[in-house]
Amino acid sequence: MKNISRRNFVKNTALTAGAGLAMVNTTEAKASKELFVHHVYFYLKNANNEADTAKLIEGLNALTKVPTIRFVHIGTPASTNRSVIEKGYAVSWLCFFDNLEEEEIYQKHPIHLKFVEEYSHLWDHVIVYDAIGPRREKQK
Amino acid sequence: MKNISRRNFVKNTALTAGAGLAMVNTTEAKASKELFVHHVYFYLKNANNEADTAKLIEGLNALTKVPTIRFVHIGTPASTNRSVIEKGYAVSWLCFFDNLEEEEIYQKHPIHLKFVEEYSHLWDHVIVYDAIGPRREKQK
Repeated sequence: MKNISRRNFVKNTALTAGAGLAMVNTTEAKASKELFVHHVYFYLKNANNEADTAKLIEGLNALTKVPTIRFVHIGTPASTNRSVIEKGYAVSWLCFFDNLEEEEIYQKHPIHLKFVEEYSHLWDHVIVYDAIGPRREKQK
Repeated sequence: MKNISRRNFVKNTALTAGAGLAMVNTTEAKASKELFVHHVYFYLKNANNEADTAKLIEGLNALTKVPTIRFVHIGTPASTNRSVIEKGYAVSWLCFFDNLEEEEIYQKHPIHLKFVEEYSHLWDHVIVYDAIGPRREKQK
């Protein structure tokens, strides 16, 4: 399967130009029809502490180096304010994987273990949502 | 600002080929240094009801047509199972916007209002996380 995909590599890298953000499927992505979305919300021991938030973001920036991560976004609560919006977390860590197996590699990766070792003293708890669903070929 | 970006359009669409998924910044994306991540978790009235889950996904597929949405992923809980993982929701709806203003356009868009009108009887409640953070130029 992988070899077949590799032969089509050049063809698969063609992209459609368009406004905004586009997702491009290359070799590995073509092989996977699903996308694994891992979203973690960190709640700090010292809630609303700017230094601790910055420290955690520093750690997450290093964590982006795990090779199986395909996309990453580090965020903080937006200013939107409706009753259904949860805003108590300090940092949002969103990442995409090609599949469940690659997320498991991430969980056990030395960079991830080092992150937990060095930064877990900062958080009170985390909430994790792992969702899997079809990968869309083209995005705006 | 927009005109300057348009002039650089060709240059901006160049991409680095690589394994996996790549995010490509084109005209509009270049203008925005941040990415607005809107993540909604739907909890159904009839929890674990397959027909209601399918119905909701049908509605969300129609909702993807809102023009300010830059990326979308519709998912269901993955099989991962750790104490920190929240799995009680039926459907995960993740979408990216260029900024807060475009998310507000989405909230008030007729397609969104129609979705709420036609499908909100299915859910018991939703939890929404809106996170904003730097857009990364290149992703793997």
